[in-house]
Amino acid sequence: MVASRIYMDWNATAPLNEAARSALLCALDMDGNASSVHAEGRKVRMLIESARRDVAQLCGAQASAVVFTSGATEAANAVLTPHFRMGRTPLAIGHLYVSAIEHPAIREGGRFTSADVSEIAVTPQGTIDLVALETALAAHDRATGLPMVAVMLANNETGIVQPIAAVASIVKAAGGILVVDAVQAAGRLPISMDDLGADFIIISSHKIGGPKGAGALVARGEALMPAALMRGGGQEKGHRSGTENMAAIAGFGAAARAASDGIAMRAATLSAQRDRLEAAMLAAAPDVLIHGRDIERLCNTSFFSLPGLKAETGQIAFDLEGVALSAGSACSSGKVGQSYVLSAMGFDPQLGALRLSIGASTTDAEIDRCAGVFAKVAGRRRLSGAAA
Amino acid sequence: MVASRIYMDWNATAPLNEAARSALLCALDMDGNASSVHAEGRKVRMLIESARRDVAQLCGAQASAVVFTSGATEAANAVLTPHFRMGRTPLAIGHLYVSAIEHPAIREGGRFTSADVSEIAVTPQGTIDLVALETALAAHDRATGLPMVAVMLANNETGIVQPIAAVASIVKAAGGILVVDAVQAAGRLPISMDDLGADFIIISSHKIGGPKGAGALVARGEALMPAALMRGGGQEKGHRSGTENMAAIAGFGAAARAASDGIAMRAATLSAQRDRLEAAMLAAAPDVLIHGRDIERLCNTSFFSLPGLKAETGQIAFDLEGVALSAGSACSSGKVGQSYVLSAMGFDPQLGALRLSIGASTTDAEIDRCAGVFAKVAGRRRLSGAAA
Repeated sequence: MVASRIYMDWNATAPLNEAARSALLCALDMDGNASSVHAEGRKVRMLIESARRDVAQLCGAQASAVVFTSGATEAANAVLTPHFRMGRTPLAIGHLYVSAIEHPAIREGGRFTSADVSEIAVTPQGTIDLVALETALAAHDRATGLPMVAVMLANNETGIVQPIAAVASIVKAAGGILVVDAVQAAGRLPISMDDLGADFIIISSHKIGGPKGAGALVARGEALMPAALMRGGGQEKGHRSGTENMAAIAGFGAAARAASDGIAMRAATLSAQRDRLEAAMLAAAPDVLIHGRDIERLCNTSFFSLPGLKAETGQIAFDLEGVALSAGSACSSGKVGQSYVLSAMGFDPQLGALRLSIGASTTDAEIDRCAGVFAKVAGRRRLSGAAA
Repeated sequence: MVASRIYMDWNATAPLNEAARSALLCALDMDGNASSVHAEGRKVRMLIESARRDVAQLCGAQASAVVFTSGATEAANAVLTPHFRMGRTPLAIGHLYVSAIEHPAIREGGRFTSADVSEIAVTPQGTIDLVALETALAAHDRATGLPMVAVMLANNETGIVQPIAAVASIVKAAGGILVVDAVQAAGRLPISMDDLGADFIIISSHKIGGPKGAGALVARGEALMPAALMRGGGQEKGHRSGTENMAAIAGFGAAARAASDGIAMRAATLSAQRDRLEAAMLAAAPDVLIHGRDIERLCNTSFFSLPGLKAETGQIAFDLEGVALSAGSACSSGKVGQSYVLSAMGFDPQLGALRLSIGASTTDAEIDRCAGVFAKVAGRRRLSGAAA
């Protein structure tokens, strides 16, 4: 008998949820281009505007300030630019400051040249170093333009929640603009544009159970907006040209609605499952190092290192046992490399780490089977260690 | 009894074809991120590579030179940039020359500043003025970098086919780079990178019966490539970061396969339907002006002006009679405006024009019903003209 596989890589991509799937299928069967004025086009337009309200609600933002993109990477590249407008007046951003543990889509700096991007260190606890941020902003040369700061709400590898409200105070005091990558936090933590103090929030559809191919750049209002990354037909009020991917957007809207609903209860369930898994892991291998265990982190994520187990070896071992997990983030795990997140936290870059991330459809039985696989993999490691 | 609606706006977006729909649904049910190395991720990767071969074949190009994007607008913005690399060596493009009838996604010039974009006139027949192109390239200042020329294979409004081979000779003689927007031509004309003499081809999934949310920038080879528009996780060999929209890409691949198959027979059928419709239009309103009727144009497109009928009025009239068509291209038809294509051809900008565009599932019965609606709309126009 072949046991079914266990998908524990929700931070790479979440399985499509039922509501999102239905909304996508329904939109797929509609003819029409949202920019067309005939009846077919107008129906598509209504669908998109409804999804816009759902996404706005997930972010505690105004619908009019939601710009749909093809995903979070595009949203990041759209907002990370030296060229903004405040109303009709051009506004220059002189320098981009990003935490050292941002996703590559942020760390690459979008349309900033690499000379105009600085990394802000993180503490050994895996949160941005607020003193380092304050120091960097104090040294910012305002003659080049305003400072922009990009910090994620929760890290994709460790799940560690960043002190965004404190970051926002520092950024506001420096007269800067704050971009918050909420890709991993969305649907796992309540999000409010105002509470965060963010000027822009980035979210992704496929990380919250929606389809791939949609994301959003959510602004605080409509006054301050970046120069468009994609120019052409003038869709999304000129902020993002290109025919709207209505099926993905409709699915994104439905996923956002599902993510907004019952968030606290879902988080409690996931937390309990994750904690049970980690207790079993610690029982099976007391030397396992669970990153961020003593600090606020996402309810669904467990990022751990097993001394003597390389990340690639561990990943293959879990895969062969039927568990899909990842070594670091999916975007970089196709290449063999170390976790830049752990390096930034001061760990030996050789330290391997694996990420288990669960979601709404994870069952208790899967948690138990995964714990068993963990024990097996950890046990083998000790055997090979003894033989070496 | 309510008659079913007749969709005659295929140039705005084609209904999703069955093969594309099946491929998309199949991909939708797969978990996994294409960058993940576990079994789920590897399956997604195989799906994407298979679609890449299908899209390459549609363009008569190499699979390794296909970069998937979120659509044609993104592909245009990706390739229209002053910053290229030939292998590892930076290569500067000094100026962009576009025909005056290009799609806005091309005419906006991507990452070129507006000062670095020139429009090349078209003849009254609606094709690019080759002498004007030659003259412009002769005056190009090579000290700023190479010239880049972007010309579409077939126009989206008129369907008129552009003399790309002749354009390519002129561009090659000037040592320039040629970008061909084949969005409307794909699946309607055979396409070969070599025969066209193009350096880059742009195509779109949803215009060939695939889902929205996918497109491709197809290069001649892998040596000469633009600086990435979207930076981040390094997907698509670093040419386009962002989690691959596997469902849309799988659907795009299936649509490309369907578009490659039996292209000549499909074109002959569409031509015959379109010609029958136009014959009926001329019989009902001998003063109808059918643009590009005496020159090579796409098999599926009829772009016409009815003296005394405003484009908006005509569009609403057809819509109320159950026929979806468009006044100009979809991207701009959401706004009330004149056709820049007709203006470029030297027509009075006040001249209204409507576009009927058909496709694989258009039936002869629909052609006949549409001809009836045309006669009705044209007749009413004469009545109101007489009353005025």
